[in-house]
Amino acid sequence: MLTVGAAAMGRPVNVFLQYWALDAFREDRVDKNHGVSPEAGEDGARGVIEQQGAVHWIELFEQAKDIGEVTINACAESMELLGITADDLHPVVDEVWGVARFFMEAGDGATFI
Amino acid sequence: MLTVGAAAMGRPVNVFLQYWALDAFREDRVDKNHGVSPEAGEDGARGVIEQQGAVHWIELFEQAKDIGEVTINACAESMELLGITADDLHPVVDEVWGVARFFMEAGDGATFI
Amino acid sequence: MLTVGAAAMGRPVNVFLQYWALDAFREDRVDKNHGVSPEAGEDGARGVIEQQGAVHWIELFEQAKDIGEVTINACAESMELLGITADDLHPVVDEVWGVARFFMEAGDGATFI
Repeated sequence: MLTVGAAAMGRPVNVFLQYWALDAFREDRVDKNHGVSPEAGEDGARGVIEQQGAVHWIELFEQAKDIGEVTINACAESMELLGITADDLHPVVDEVWGVARFFMEAGDGATFI
Repeated sequence: MLTVGAAAMGRPVNVFLQYWALDAFREDRVDKNHGVSPEAGEDGARGVIEQQGAVHWIELFEQAKDIGEVTINACAESMELLGITADDLHPVVDEVWGVARFFMEAGDGATFI
Repeated sequence: MLTVGAAAMGRPVNVFLQYWALDAFREDRVDKNHGVSPEAGEDGARGVIEQQGAVHWIELFEQAKDIGEVTINACAESMELLGITADDLHPVVDEVWGVARFFMEAGDGATFI
């Protein structure tokens, strides 16, 4: 939702996927229930948000790419650790970047969230 | 604690509450035990911090507002998803903001934590 | 891994350890399995990353300190809450800082991750 908001405000956005966030973007897992943090409590466990007809999170990223300058990139080091190849990833993912490239692209003026 | 520290240093602070963080600010839930992340391990599960007489987290935010320029705002989109109304929120919450307003207020010079 | 990447790019890095992150840097706990977030799913629970011979996370921080300008500091307020003393910490930790000092050192040009 932050990506959609920033895109709508005309800000360029780089989403950098690492570890389990990257795992969630495997094409065969995007529809899997990935669980919520314990802080979500009982409502979280019962999937309150999903039940209320919220848009699938992958669609939010697709919307963000439609309306703004948004790139979604997979962390090369995380792919190696998790045994994920580029072919495994959902097409919403644009490229595979190393951590060094991520820091280069996110220059000194960038804000991190 | 970061909010108190930043306020004490004279930095303006915007706290933007989304999802389960917002849920924790419902007036009838601020005293609920929201659990800790699994990374907290056994000490976390046993509530070691609470047992040591730490100040309630809502009091830390109240202190921060007393000493500095601090606003605490609820995410409009999260409120809709979770079925929360402005009346449900603890009075420490100032306003309801959309994601777009959050990005406007947090201008280019802002740092995100 | 972000610390290593930033150090390799010539960026100064301050790592500020709070709460359970700090707890993980206690010398007698650095080899403990601290668990993973529920979002990690079954692969996370099975320790897929550890099984693939990944470098221990404390070694990544040591590498980062070898190649760049990296300091790792413990939050004084968190130490008090958790009953941790400077002697308890792994030698990779440089100093104990209060939250105010953290904000001073991380000046206006700093990015937070």
